Order: sequence, then C-alpha cells, then structure tokens
Amino acid sequence: MIKIGIVGGTGYTGVELLRILAVHPEVEVKCITSRSEAGMPVADMYPNLRGHFDLAFSEPDPEQLAECDLVFFATPHGVAARMVPELMKAGTRVVDLSADFRLKDLDVWAKWYGMPHESPEWAAKAVYGLPEVARDEIRKAQLVANPGCYPTAVQLGFLPLLENGLVDPSRLIADAKSGASGAGRQASTGMLHGEIGESFKTYGASGHRHLPEIRQGLGQAAGTGVGVTFVPHLLPMIRGIEATLYAELNDTADFERLQALFEERYRDEPFVDVMPFGSHPETRSVRGANHCRMALHRQEQSNVVIVTSVIDNLVKGAAGQAVQNMNIMFGLDERLGLNAPAMLP
Amino acid sequence: MIKIGIVGGTGYTGVELLRILAVHPEVEVKCITSRSEAGMPVADMYPNLRGHFDLAFSEPDPEQLAECDLVFFATPHGVAARMVPELMKAGTRVVDLSADFRLKDLDVWAKWYGMPHESPEWAAKAVYGLPEVARDEIRKAQLVANPGCYPTAVQLGFLPLLENGLVDPSRLIADAKSGASGAGRQASTGMLHGEIGESFKTYGASGHRHLPEIRQGLGQAAGTGVGVTFVPHLLPMIRGIEATLYAELNDTADFERLQALFEERYRDEPFVDVMPFGSHPETRSVRGANHCRMALHRQEQSNVVIVTSVIDNLVKGAAGQAVQNMNIMFGLDERLGLNAPAMLP
Amino acid sequence: MIKIGIVGGTGYTGVELLRILAVHPEVEVKCITSRSEAGMPVADMYPNLRGHFDLAFSEPDPEQLAECDLVFFATPHGVAARMVPELMKAGTRVVDLSADFRLKDLDVWAKWYGMPHESPEWAAKAVYGLPEVARDEIRKAQLVANPGCYPTAVQLGFLPLLENGLVDPSRLIADAKSGASGAGRQASTGMLHGEIGESFKTYGASGHRHLPEIRQGLGQAAGTGVGVTFVPHLLPMIRGIEATLYAELNDTADFERLQALFEERYRDEPFVDVMPFGSHPETRSVRGANHCRMALHRQEQSNVVIVTSVIDNLVKGAAGQAVQNMNIMFGLDERLGLNAPAMLP
Amino acid sequence: MIKIGIVGGTGYTGVELLRILAVHPEVEVKCITSRSEAGMPVADMYPNLRGHFDLAFSEPDPEQLAECDLVFFATPHGVAARMVPELMKAGTRVVDLSADFRLKDLDVWAKWYGMPHESPEWAAKAVYGLPEVARDEIRKAQLVANPGCYPTAVQLGFLPLLENGLVDPSRLIADAKSGASGAGRQASTGMLHGEIGESFKTYGASGHRHLPEIRQGLGQAAGTGVGVTFVPHLLPMIRGIEATLYAELNDTADFERLQALFEERYRDEPFVDVMPFGSHPETRSVRGANHCRMALHRQEQSNVVIVTSVIDNLVKGAAGQAVQNMNIMFGLDERLGLNAPAMLP
Repeated sequence: MIKIGIVGGTGYTGVELLRILAVHPEVEVKCITSRSEAGMPVADMYPNLRGHFDLAFSEPDPEQLAECDLVFFATPHGVAARMVPELMKAGTRVVDLSADFRLKDLDVWAKWYGMPHESPEWAAKAVYGLPEVARDEIRKAQLVANPGCYPTAVQLGFLPLLENGLVDPSRLIADAKSGASGAGRQASTGMLHGEIGESFKTYGASGHRHLPEIRQGLGQAAGTGVGVTFVPHLLPMIRGIEATLYAELNDTADFERLQALFEERYRDEPFVDVMPFGSHPETRSVRGANHCRMALHRQEQSNVVIVTSVIDNLVKGAAGQAVQNMNIMFGLDERLGLNAPAMLP
Repeated sequence: MIKIGIVGGTGYTGVELLRILAVHPEVEVKCITSRSEAGMPVADMYPNLRGHFDLAFSEPDPEQLAECDLVFFATPHGVAARMVPELMKAGTRVVDLSADFRLKDLDVWAKWYGMPHESPEWAAKAVYGLPEVARDEIRKAQLVANPGCYPTAVQLGFLPLLENGLVDPSRLIADAKSGASGAGRQASTGMLHGEIGESFKTYGASGHRHLPEIRQGLGQAAGTGVGVTFVPHLLPMIRGIEATLYAELNDTADFERLQALFEERYRDEPFVDVMPFGSHPETRSVRGANHCRMALHRQEQSNVVIVTSVIDNLVKGAAGQAVQNMNIMFGLDERLGLNAPAMLP
Repeated sequence: MIKIGIVGGTGYTGVELLRILAVHPEVEVKCITSRSEAGMPVADMYPNLRGHFDLAFSEPDPEQLAECDLVFFATPHGVAARMVPELMKAGTRVVDLSADFRLKDLDVWAKWYGMPHESPEWAAKAVYGLPEVARDEIRKAQLVANPGCYPTAVQLGFLPLLENGLVDPSRLIADAKSGASGAGRQASTGMLHGEIGESFKTYGASGHRHLPEIRQGLGQAAGTGVGVTFVPHLLPMIRGIEATLYAELNDTADFERLQALFEERYRDEPFVDVMPFGSHPETRSVRGANHCRMALHRQEQSNVVIVTSVIDNLVKGAAGQAVQNMNIMFGLDERLGLNAPAMLP
Repeated sequence: MIKIGIVGGTGYTGVELLRILAVHPEVEVKCITSRSEAGMPVADMYPNLRGHFDLAFSEPDPEQLAECDLVFFATPHGVAARMVPELMKAGTRVVDLSADFRLKDLDVWAKWYGMPHESPEWAAKAVYGLPEVARDEIRKAQLVANPGCYPTAVQLGFLPLLENGLVDPSRLIADAKSGASGAGRQASTGMLHGEIGESFKTYGASGHRHLPEIRQGLGQAAGTGVGVTFVPHLLPMIRGIEATLYAELNDTADFERLQALFEERYRDEPFVDVMPFGSHPETRSVRGANHCRMALHRQEQSNVVIVTSVIDNLVKGAAGQAVQNMNIMFGLDERLGLNAPAMLP
C-alpha cells in the first residue's frame, strides 16, 4: 500500500482526492492537513465521506509527511514552493496540484502570482504532469506539477494540430467555460449562489493566470512561440469545463485527415476520447470521471478548425489527473481508482 | 459471473443501472433491450458509457432473457406484469424497478395505474425489496419488487417510530421533494428546463401513486392502518430526494431515547446513516451513492418528531437498491459495486 | 413626490427596493446609505441599475434621513432599533424591513436575536405591516414593521382557516422552502454556489427566528395560542418561497366550503390570488411580482387541509410588501409601482 | 390605443410579449391566436398573467387580425410568410419575430429552413429591424423582420469595428452561449431539465441557422463579405445570451480609441450600454430588460479585440426588440413599456 499524505485538504480539490482515493485499492491515506480545521473529522466537513474515512484534519507535521510515499499538495499558491524542498530531501515524492511548479519562467510566475518563487531549484526539476505529453518523465519524477484545469482542456484539444504543424500558431483562440467549483471553497461574495446562479459572464478576459501555462504548453508542442487568446467564463453549475478552440488550418485539404490524426494521437490514451466528427461533447459526459472528450467541427467554406473539449475540472483538471500521475509514478495501472463511468444524468 | 439482462434500458434508471454495473466485479451484462432504439449502441445515447459498454440496445428476446441469471425491469408500468410470468417459469430471477409488483392490493393498483393487473399470482408472491425490512425474504426471492423512490425515503425515516409504537399512526405527514430525474426521460413540456429550472412547486398534492405504497409499508411496520398525508414537490435540480417527516410522539419523554433508538435500528445497515441529532442531511451527500442519510429534530415544547431523510432517487431510490437486492439474492457482499462515496460537490 | 431614504442598501433587499422604486411614479430616492461602500455608485455594484440611478452609496446622515418623507431600513437586526427613535422624533415615517419591530414580546426577541432590544417604546407602537390583516393601522402608522418572508407566505395561507376557527390550532405544520437570496449577500462558505447548487436540505429545523413571528401572527388570527411546527429548507435557486401548510379540519364537512371561503377572504386583495382548488402554484408565477398565489388540496378520506402558498421572498416577502405598505401609508393606489406581471419563464 | 394581434402566442416569445405589453400604456391586445390551444384562457397556461389578461387563445381569424393596427408573429418559420401578404394588402403593419423575413437571399433561406419561401415579394420589402442600424427605415416600414437573438448580440458587438474598417473582416469569431428558453417550449427529450441542467455543450457547431443572418448583417456593416465563425452553446439556465467576439485589429494603435469609438457609436441608443473597458457584463444584468450591455478587452501584446456582449434572448433578442420596433413604427417614445430595470438577483 502506498502511504499518502494530503496537505491542505479542506478545499474541493482535497475532498475530491479523498473521494477518488476511497476506492483506490493500492493506497492508504495517512494524514490530511489543515491548519484552520485541525482536529475536525474529515467526514464532519464532507458528509459524503461518512463511513469512508475516520481521519481528522491535522496540523501539517513535516516528519509525518516525510514518512509518506507520496504527498499531494492541494494548497493555495506559495505553500508547496515553501514546503517541497524538505520533502524532496527526505526522498518523498510529491504531486503538487497548486500552480507552484507549473511554469518554467519564474519571472512570469512571480508576476502572475505576486510573490517571488521560493524554490527555483525544484521549479526547474519539476515535471509538468500532463501524461499525454510526458508520461515517461512522470514515471521517474520525484516532483510532478499537476496541470491547471483550463490548461488541461485547452492543451489536449490543440496538441495534435500543433505537434503536426497544421495550423497557424500565432492565431489560436481558446474560449473556455468553467463550473463554479473551479474557484474553490473560500467564502466570497462573488461566488455566492445568489450572484452566479442563473447567470453567465466572462472573467479575467484581459488576462488570467492560466494563460502563461497554456502558452508554455502549446509553445512546446508547436516548437515555436504561439499567439493564444484565452477567455474564461463562469458557468452557473458546479463541475465541468468546456473549451471551444479555434485555429486556422494552413492547408484546408488537411481537413480530410484531421479526424484520423486526432484518433491516432490519442489511440492509446486511457483518458482521452476522440468522439465522431461533428459530435457535441457535454460536460456531464465526464462528470466525476477522469476523461477528456473532444470533437472536431468545420463550418462550410471555412479554414477554421473548431475543437470542443470537455473535462471535469476537479477530476482530469485536478484530483483525477493527480491520481493518474501517482499511478504512473508508482508503476500501477494508470486507470486504478479512476475507472468508474461519469455520472449522467 | 452473474449474467444480467435489462429490459427497458433507455431511461434514467437504465443508464444508472449500467453506471453501477460497470464497476461491479461479479456481473456481466448480456443484453439491454429497447423496442424504440434497437440497434443503437448504448454509448451513443449515453456518452458517459463510452469505453465501458460495447452493447447495443436490442429487441426484447424472451429466450435470451430467460438465459440470464437475473433480469432487471426498468420499464413503464404494465410491462413487467406481462413479461414476468414467463421468466418465472424459466427459473430466471427478476428485480422489477417499475411499480408492477409493489402493491399487494391489486384493486388499489388497478385504480392508480389505470389498468387491471396482468399477473395477480406473481403480485402475491413478489417480495417487496426494502432490504432494511425484508432482507431474508429477498435472499430467497425469485421476484423482487424494487421500492419506489419516495417510499424508500419515507419508510426508512418513519420505520423506527412505527415499529416501536412511539407515535400516533393516524397523523403522519411526509413532505417530500424530488429532483427532476424522478420523472424519467420522456419528452414532455412540463419537464423542460425552461419550465422547471429556477422554480419550485408541489405536484400530485391531491394524491400521488406512491401514496398507497407508502401506506402499505408504514401500515406493516405499525401493525395497524396508518393515516399519512404525502405531498411531493419538484426541485429545480436533477438528482436527490429529501423527505421531511412529521409525527406526534405519544409520550414526549421518549424524545430522550429517539436518537439511540434510530442508531440501534440501523446499526448493521450498510446503507442507512443516522446522523447526529439536529443535523441537516443534504441531498448532495448521497449523490450517486446508495445511502440514505437521516437526522432527527425537535422544536422546543413540541411533541412533534421531525425526521429528515435524503436519498439519491436514482440510486437508493431505484438502480442502487436494485443492485443491493441483487447482491442479497446471490449471496454477495451487499456493498459490491456500491461502495464509492457520493459525489460532493 | 415622496422623498425616500434607504438605510443599508447594499444587500439584495436594497437593490430590490431600487428596482421597484425605479418605475414608481410618485417617489424620488434621495439617499441610499452604506458604511462600507460609501462613495461607490449604486450602479457599479448593481449593473442592472445602470441608466436608472446616478446615486452613490453614502454614509448614513441622520439629518438627511430626517428630511425624507419615508425611510426604508434594509439593515441587519439591531440597526433600525438604534436609529429609528430619532427619526420618529423628527416625524419621519419608517418601514423597517429588518426583524427589529416585528415581535411584541421583547424577551422572545432578545432570545432569538442575541441582544437586548434598544427601542422598547417603538417596538410597542410599531404596526406589523401585513396589509391583508392591518391595512387601516398601516395607513396611520409612523413606523411599520415589514413582515419576514416565511411569515408572509405562512400567515396568508393559514389565515382564513384560523380566523374562522375551522382547524385545530395546536397542530399546524408549515414546511417551507426558500431560494438562496433569502440569506442575503454576505460572503459565506455555506451559501457558495458550489455548496448549495444542485442540492437541497433543511436548515434551522430545530428552531428558526421566523418561528416566533409566525406564532405571533397565527395566534392573533386564531384568537388563541397556536402550536406550529415550522421547518425551513434551502432551494438550489435564487428567488421564491413555497410553503406547504397542513392543518386538521375540525369538521370534514367544511371541505365543501373552503375554496369559497378563501376566495371571499381575499376577494379585494390586490396581491393575493386564490387559484382553483387542486392547483399547484409555482414560485416562478410570482417571480419579481408582489403576489402571493395559493391553492387548496385534500387527499382522499383525510381531514387534513393542505394549502400551498408561493411568494417571491424579495418582493411580497420584503421590498415589494414594503412599497405596498408605503403606498398605503401615503394614500396612494396600493398597486403603484407593483403592477408588472411576474417574469415567466 | 394601438390595437394588437399576436399570432402564435403559446411559446416563450408569446408570453414574453404579453408580459411586456401588460404594462405598455399605449396598446390594447385584441387577440392572441393558437390553433392547438384555442379556447384556453391565456392565464391558465401562464399563471403569471392571472389578473393581467382575460383573453383566451383563439383560432387565427384573418379578418380580426386585419383590423389590428399591428400584428406580431411569434410562430414557427413558414407561417408568417404564408399569412403576411394578406395582412399587407389590408394595410395592417406586422412585426415578425420568426425567421421568415430576415434573409434577403431566399436561396440561402430555403436551404436553412428546408422549404421554398412563400412570399418573395415581401421578403424583399421587409425591413430588418435592428433599430441601432435601421431606425429610419423601421419608422416607415409596414413589415419589420425582428432580428434573431444570437444575431442581435453578435451584430451589436461587432458593428463599430466593421463600420469603421478597423478589423480584418475575414477573421471574425463569435463564440455565443444561450439559455434554454431560446429553444422554445416544444416538448423534446433534448431540452429536458434532466438533460441540460448542470451541463454545458456546443450545438450546431458545424453550422446554425443564425449564421447566414449574422453574415448578412455584418457584411452590410463592413461593406464587404465577411468570414465569420459562429459557435452556439447551451447554458444550464433559462434566459440570457452572452457572445464573446474576437477580431484582429488592423492597426494595434487603434486600441487607444476603441472605447471612445464604441461609446460614441451608441451614445444615443436607449438600449445599448457600453460598459467601462475591461468590464465583465453578466447576463443577469439584462434579465427581463431590453438592454444589450457590452465591454471591450485586450490581452497583453495581442492585436485581438475581445468584445463581450449580453442580452436577454427573450427581450432584446425577441419580444422586447419587437416592442421597441413597434414604438418606432408608431412614433412613440422608443422606451415605452421597456423601462423597468433588469431583475437582479
């Protein structure tokens, strides 16, 4: 059994990790920390876990964490950067679900997160944990930076186009929409049901923290800098991200082979589902599941490829992908604990 | 492996059965029938099942069904009553999720369902499949009538009070609320999102089909006829039933021991969770799970016991309870396939 | 033009007052106060008011308020009790939408609101502003205590039964459900969309602040003490209250005349709509409107009268009723500013 | 008083017309037709209208319609094309809310609507009723084609850019999202609450009927053919459209003057609100109101202009704009009946 620690477990990412790990046959959760809620049984905060976990939240204890085989960080930015070096020294492996180790350019990181990065050494060594791109590096990594939710949906949709040089990399548009759970569980007026229920809007349209992460990933796939416009929107629902992606084909004749190309690219991926050309993936088709489903579209006489890509922001966009990464790191079947169908309706 | 057939699989109960059975280690789904959709792959209608089932809907074939070890009926009323006798003769076991075999008084059945009952013999023999009441009979049954969604939530909440004769059985009130999935997946103006989103109302307040089923079950628990007022309401959400139950304690001194009594009653039940006195069970705490969670309340100087009880109408209120019944019938661990935590948020 | 001041305008009740007053032909809003947001244009916080109001929130200024003809308080409890005496001295009229002047028994008030009442003199003089009961007193009142949202829906539904002594006053049950806007606009984890979207639960089931207000109003109607059990629930939607009310008829023969009795009771009421017997009032049928719609039900062989009553908690349950009271106080047509149909769908 | 007829009043557009006309001081609704519901009082289908209209739905009667001053068509496509010529002959004015008279190219019309157009003569004469573009023609028109909901939101957002030749007209992208009421009130499985609640998806991504209408309007503004990609999405809510628009500025120096340009373009428009640069318009800020609110965004180092535009699909996207057109046609203040603020929350 893999001994697991979770740092910062009171948010939606934390409870989602527990929901998934509850049915994972190869792990044992040893501790789940929260400074503010230390002492409270996890199941008192999250009654869906009644009968599944007897654990209470505990103060973070470096020694206890160091004894774990793997520690998940589900913390606000800055925390993992501070705590990870000590765990690395102790030989503990880490999957960080926060943004701390995703960006390689730490000036960019500092600008978007408003603080200097406290662990440049490990920022350089961390592996960006998108299994569809970096499975081999993840296998050997001690520190995996779990991708952001939007970047996962956007990158998976654009990758086959960019890797094959089929589209103009300077004219990418990602119009993305997320359920409210993406904003976490902190009390705020803006995320009240009374504010966001039965309404829809953009946010961060002039610039969002996930933009540099998307740019980094797509640039790597394209082998060149990319020009990407990324506009997030807030959906009046809880779980799910949909990204509608637009790119200009260099040669419209390539439309003929796009579907086959996408299917080939993801043929061996357990969690990417290329649906038939012209399908309309729904977020509910991946609710609670670790899948990304996507489909391609073309409008008549147009050279614009439209890709629509859906994930559950808490699963493939966070906790599920983290467990997928853990499975890879420990040589397990990548699907362990992640093979239940999405919940529909 | 238990060979499974599902009759009438296009509705929400059908897809929910498949969602649960997909991770059940001891079953193999051999066929799922639909006259109207015969030939369509199940996963084309329900994309959450892509990668889980290759089956297509098929015309109901009596021989194929008879070769199954267990057939689930997820059909409109009347269908199971017509088809079950032949399966009984063949020795096949059946869990009927429709209303056909729930009522023992067939005059009452005929009145509420607007047709004569076609299988009085098996209506008499069928076991009403509420495991918390009839586990031993279910184990041996060839035909199990799976309880309705409202009746499950209402009966589980009232049982300890009635079995112990603590309340006035002539003054029971069940104010129940259901998500929209309870109405099924048939096209209808009244169930459009535009009609029921962001609104709330009663329906069937002058009489609902589940009333006689509730009356039958509570009467059996009380050992006497009961007077129960049952008002269903339609919630602007998809899954979940909450029932707020009111009864008058014969002796207010009994308030002291109610909590212990409920806990004792359900101590060994894997799917009934008595929460601490004064808790407020949320439907999301059982979303996708087979649990019923309940709590007790008292308002000052009152002799009214308030019980609030929540289930997922598609799981403990339908497909989950059906699988629980199957597990009992085949001597399996009752929790097989049903042990994932609810999805929260 | 009636000069209007609003104290505490940043919450949902405040913006709803402005929405209604924007089309009221006889008023002029002179000031709207907020300590925390002083200086911010109202339309910056509430963009639906862009083009309707140029006002900014201001620090509460006693002199400015005293110059108004009418001041609405839309403040947390305690504020109006502190500020009202000075306005009374100045001759200003007040409609208080908070709970400060609703209860006549100040011991009860102090117990539920956790502080001593600061203005017992005016608590005694205040008129409880349910127009359907106290229109004449409201007309002459200097201080009107605007009823709570639940108490409005519950009282209007029970009144005809209690005023005519038709039911057992010791066995009243009010099972009530409210949209999330009833909890106001303060940041809180519990009211996040992620917490209450797509879920349903009771709250305050062991006792809620509106219980004594309901008890006071029903007791007055019955001319005797009443026994009422009141359980509120939280709906995954924004606006609307539905109350399902249960009472035992003393004489079941009275069922014959109930409908006529209700229609007669409310015949001249511009904002109470008794729908045909057996109807199912929907909250959306009063969304944004000042109406209470209700209907009666009976289940076979039962002596229980079921009344279902719906209001918009922010309109007839708060700001709309406050404007109705203002209209009465100033001798205007009671419907002024309140005659637009509800928004459906 | 303007005598009004409404043909096809049972859908959401019909009830919305009635909701608006109920408070319009200069109209009298003489008839509202429905073949299927003839005889049913309007308020029985739409209880929000109880007390506002005594009318019942009636069989369409050409003579009665011809006696009206204005007839609104809220019918499926094809109906108005068939009935309008006779009304034109009678001198009656018409605002057609259906798609029948929006397109000038009738081959395109026939292709998208699957039937030949029955009134080419009047299709040529009809005025496309976007007041912000064609106010003068509308004033004199006998037949006004009321714009579609998506085309309204998309055109208003792009117009200032295209009219001034600031962007590449061959690279326009409109990513649009609509609430479920846009699909109307016909029973269908796909629009059930159980299907679209708590989920999100594209639809019509390979081509939607509103695309040629958008192309026609934008081409006219640009004075040249345009290349526009238009992808609609379905929101899990009832009312509201948000369109996020992307265009490439020919000269990035123009970013400096865009805000002033937009403000100038719409300065005298009563129903278009250009919010401060970088704002995030919410659909709820126009719920129930006839406004279009929009804002501009730029992401760093990009030449892409982002415009986000919101309307209520049933108001500015249908019935409200129809009443605005009526006001213009009859020389009334354009805002009559349309000046209540949006309903927020």
